[in-house]
Amino acid sequence: MSKMQTLVEKPKEQLKRNKLVIICSKGSLDMAYPPLMLATTAAAMGMQVDLYFTFWGMNMITKKTIDSLKIPPVGNPALPMPNILGMLPGMSSMVTSMMKKNMKKIKMPSIREMIATAKEGGVKFHACSPSMNMMGLQKEDLIPEVDDIIGAATYLELASEDAITLFI
Amino acid sequence: MSKMQTLVEKPKEQLKRNKLVIICSKGSLDMAYPPLMLATTAAAMGMQVDLYFTFWGMNMITKKTIDSLKIPPVGNPALPMPNILGMLPGMSSMVTSMMKKNMKKIKMPSIREMIATAKEGGVKFHACSPSMNMMGLQKEDLIPEVDDIIGAATYLELASEDAITLFI
Amino acid sequence: MSKMQTLVEKPKEQLKRNKLVIICSKGSLDMAYPPLMLATTAAAMGMQVDLYFTFWGMNMITKKTIDSLKIPPVGNPALPMPNILGMLPGMSSMVTSMMKKNMKKIKMPSIREMIATAKEGGVKFHACSPSMNMMGLQKEDLIPEVDDIIGAATYLELASEDAITLFI
Repeated sequence: MSKMQTLVEKPKEQLKRNKLVIICSKGSLDMAYPPLMLATTAAAMGMQVDLYFTFWGMNMITKKTIDSLKIPPVGNPALPMPNILGMLPGMSSMVTSMMKKNMKKIKMPSIREMIATAKEGGVKFHACSPSMNMMGLQKEDLIPEVDDIIGAATYLELASEDAITLFI
Repeated sequence: MSKMQTLVEKPKEQLKRNKLVIICSKGSLDMAYPPLMLATTAAAMGMQVDLYFTFWGMNMITKKTIDSLKIPPVGNPALPMPNILGMLPGMSSMVTSMMKKNMKKIKMPSIREMIATAKEGGVKFHACSPSMNMMGLQKEDLIPEVDDIIGAATYLELASEDAITLFI
Repeated sequence: MSKMQTLVEKPKEQLKRNKLVIICSKGSLDMAYPPLMLATTAAAMGMQVDLYFTFWGMNMITKKTIDSLKIPPVGNPALPMPNILGMLPGMSSMVTSMMKKNMKKIKMPSIREMIATAKEGGVKFHACSPSMNMMGLQKEDLIPEVDDIIGAATYLELASEDAITLFI
């Protein structure tokens, strides 16, 4: 939480738009951080925040997967590594544990910690119902922080209320 | 279409913003579904929907590629598979056919079917002219559902009309 | 610049929303073009444009990496290549140089040229402070075009001003 507070440089009393609605569609560790950092910061600024988890983003709110999100070492040209090395088994875990170590060093909270902070701040967590069907997931497979299971229509209603919208 | 209808939980008479403009930039099967599911749902809710296809997203509206969109098995850490296995030739098709089978089981329409539904619902399909240049594509290479070939300026005009905007 | 001008088909005097705020989170060559093409076009149309670079997007504004952005040949199912081939060392550079050659043929400016055009047009470049911490980057590691180093709160203030928002 201390990290989160440093992110809020200048809290605003009044924003022209005070809603943030993010679709979280990725199941990798690197793309799990951006929505949660934006959500916790926005909540700290008094914004109303809704996260809609869909496709691979379901991994962020599924009990079995939340603690084992990984960074793809292959197909990620931003990592200084030839593709053939990225292929070796265990290489994904090595890159992931390197990133996790770095994040610990700068006191970046874990995904679970960020979800807890977001929840305390009033961020709403929505699971996508067609994605649950597709992946054969039940309500009890999801972390308890999930508020409800909704479809695209409800997402669109939220987004239509003059929200800042992002697809991550 | 029956699937689409179940997505619309509570059709709204009046939304604060009733436009949706999505940039479709990905050429993989998993990232082809989200824009089409949002577009068909939004159209069913009476929203005006514009899809702007650019970069790899051109695969979704190109005759040669539309029926062979694939899921990347490597570099997708959400799939439970060591990278070295994802590397074997044919593995991408295996993962893809697994996902297609799952989708059939839950009666998820194919990309072609979703495009037909979207088109019926009034969704506009725009191809990106610089992308066509870059990929050496001609108008006759595109599926007939494409309404026109436009540039970034026209996209920005559409987006500026108080639309919900997403980059997928 | 000549290419950029052809993108502006019909410059508008008055747009309903005249702000564009893009989060640039990818470090690959293919995903570096879309935000810069949109930014330069929007600036040419008289819009106020802010680019917020975060995570792998830092590669686009870091001196060491800006000229060596690559395209991932693996995990990109849009490329006509079996995964096993994409794995060979040097394959990423081959795909990248093919794309660069194509872009030269159609007179597409380089990333550096597009950044210069954007800067001339008044586009603001913001680096994400938590990303700099995470990657151990200092201000002097960034290209001089970067205007400032800000956090998520400042991004949200920009986005809340009725801007077109995208996460790329």
